[in-house]
Amino acid sequence: MIDLTAPFCYNKVMEEAKLQHILAESGADALFLEQDFLRRYVTGFYSTDGYAVCDRAGCSLFADPRYYEAAYAQLAGSFVKVEAGAFEAAVARASGSKTLGVPFPFISRAACARLEERGFVLKDCMPALKEAMKVKTAEEIGRIARACDIAEEGLLATLPRLKEGMTEREAAATLEYEMRMRGADGTSFETIVAFGAGSSVPHHETGDTKLKFGDVVLIDYGCKVEGYCSDCTRTFLFGDDKKHGAFKEHYALVLKAHELVKEKVVSGMTGREADEVARACFREQGLDSFFTHSLGHGIGLQIHEYPVLAPRSEEILADGMVFSDEPGLYFAGEYGIRIEDSVTLQDGRVVSFMKKTPHELIIL
Amino acid sequence: MIDLTAPFCYNKVMEEAKLQHILAESGADALFLEQDFLRRYVTGFYSTDGYAVCDRAGCSLFADPRYYEAAYAQLAGSFVKVEAGAFEAAVARASGSKTLGVPFPFISRAACARLEERGFVLKDCMPALKEAMKVKTAEEIGRIARACDIAEEGLLATLPRLKEGMTEREAAATLEYEMRMRGADGTSFETIVAFGAGSSVPHHETGDTKLKFGDVVLIDYGCKVEGYCSDCTRTFLFGDDKKHGAFKEHYALVLKAHELVKEKVVSGMTGREADEVARACFREQGLDSFFTHSLGHGIGLQIHEYPVLAPRSEEILADGMVFSDEPGLYFAGEYGIRIEDSVTLQDGRVVSFMKKTPHELIIL
Repeated sequence: MIDLTAPFCYNKVMEEAKLQHILAESGADALFLEQDFLRRYVTGFYSTDGYAVCDRAGCSLFADPRYYEAAYAQLAGSFVKVEAGAFEAAVARASGSKTLGVPFPFISRAACARLEERGFVLKDCMPALKEAMKVKTAEEIGRIARACDIAEEGLLATLPRLKEGMTEREAAATLEYEMRMRGADGTSFETIVAFGAGSSVPHHETGDTKLKFGDVVLIDYGCKVEGYCSDCTRTFLFGDDKKHGAFKEHYALVLKAHELVKEKVVSGMTGREADEVARACFREQGLDSFFTHSLGHGIGLQIHEYPVLAPRSEEILADGMVFSDEPGLYFAGEYGIRIEDSVTLQDGRVVSFMKKTPHELIIL
Repeated sequence: MIDLTAPFCYNKVMEEAKLQHILAESGADALFLEQDFLRRYVTGFYSTDGYAVCDRAGCSLFADPRYYEAAYAQLAGSFVKVEAGAFEAAVARASGSKTLGVPFPFISRAACARLEERGFVLKDCMPALKEAMKVKTAEEIGRIARACDIAEEGLLATLPRLKEGMTEREAAATLEYEMRMRGADGTSFETIVAFGAGSSVPHHETGDTKLKFGDVVLIDYGCKVEGYCSDCTRTFLFGDDKKHGAFKEHYALVLKAHELVKEKVVSGMTGREADEVARACFREQGLDSFFTHSLGHGIGLQIHEYPVLAPRSEEILADGMVFSDEPGLYFAGEYGIRIEDSVTLQDGRVVSFMKKTPHELIIL
């Protein structure tokens, strides 16, 4: 039998009062959540399937037999009541509510139809959830910081193991292993390892290209700790074949843009203004057309979250937000350079989670 | 610049005629797909974002600057036209169509609203896609077989490395590394490694529990090759402490159910009838209430696909389908046993992809 005297490990991310605030902001009678990361956010329990139903009277997590035992043990003592069952049980629990808050950007058309057939009126609760999720609690920041630590330590353990003839996939395997062994629950997205010209493809698919002397090496990767993501990119040279003059100049410029963001972005700026800090730095050199993506994205339970730091983003940056600072330059068929930290805003200023891996160009 | 004389590596899963058949079956004027696995299914190209628009005149893949270069190179010579752009470009391409086929179980409410605002009428194309995706082509079967081979070889390389005191997470790290080094693109789901009583939780979360003598070891895992998944579970004893009499009897029964499925399930049966083969085997011993999940699920680009092999599934099994055969018994707080192969139907009979890892109880 399960030892219910074991220390509580329930959700420290969400407090009942905060959840009630989200519910009130949503304007719905109850929240009805079936998306795994949203269930995790409000209840603290992770499962591939399940339903969280929260109204003014409280919050219930419906777990099927695969998860009931674990959910019951983990959430004992929390404000979340674990109940056995799936969709029908969740609908029955919500039956006193007329309007249900569901996340329009994540709920499927089919799932909406199933709820509307039961007479519920659906409201989008994602704006309210997004406002709450954007600003991280100390507990969330702690998890992200740990995910960043593990990512950096994993990379530092991997770099000495990169050898001529090794494939991108083998390098990714090594990095993922080193992160896993340090406590990561898995990667936060598919690890990108690009050798040579592959680095010019911002979302290069890690493959069987072999590492050779003089290659540019771009590694974009991250891991998860208790559901929370880290995101980091570093670009290296695998040996200096003395043909890298332009590369080194471009590297210095990307690094300058990356550091300018850390220096100049402050709470109260918009995502557009933050993006412009990096973009202007490239524009001054006539290279902004080679910065083909946006500066950054929020990081949390999802690798791409809120806020968005991009030319059209009017989101206001604030203390406690976590996002990426990832300017880059890409020269098709030649090379690409990206330097990325996961950072947060604290007392109005940018604080990076990444302090262990150097930002200056490393010749491996 | 990119070498366009390189050998074609475009989609061999989908043929233009098959895509036109899916379009016709959907009853829509065009398919409008933004889900990554569906874009990959119809175009053969993988990206995190993008749109595939297919009408009677042809199929276009809209790729943003992060992917355009790679998509253009990979799909050169295929029936898929790669175009630069995102949502607006895709909508413009579809503007001659009145009805759009979108997958209701996967498209979000917000995405539906964006399309309906433009005057499109939406139809569910998932039934047509599902019918096509259920039955795998030789190319798809080949990828799944390779993913199964790598999974088995990875496990065989991992077992000798399991040592007393190792954590579940370290065992998972080792297994994932061994699969990656053999060519896997990643895991097909979060690796489940359960030591001891954790095995009684069907979806146990791999953690920091340490391996000790006499533990039951349950490993449920898989990897991806070119997008396609493998799924495998094995249950072991880490040393025989002579207290495992009941466990061994239950293991033999689970293995019997697993093998009966391979023997008795034939094309033409329903998913319910297949599930019943295993369930009846447990019922005869009065143990069916400990088989707390269904027999199996389809496997393909997604780890949980079509068909479903469960008590309420009336789907007809047919040659070329790929699914899991995974009966199990779970005794809360004590131990769980699951034995799972990824299998296919060929000439009416079950053929397993798993031939390298023994099914008989192994004492590690």
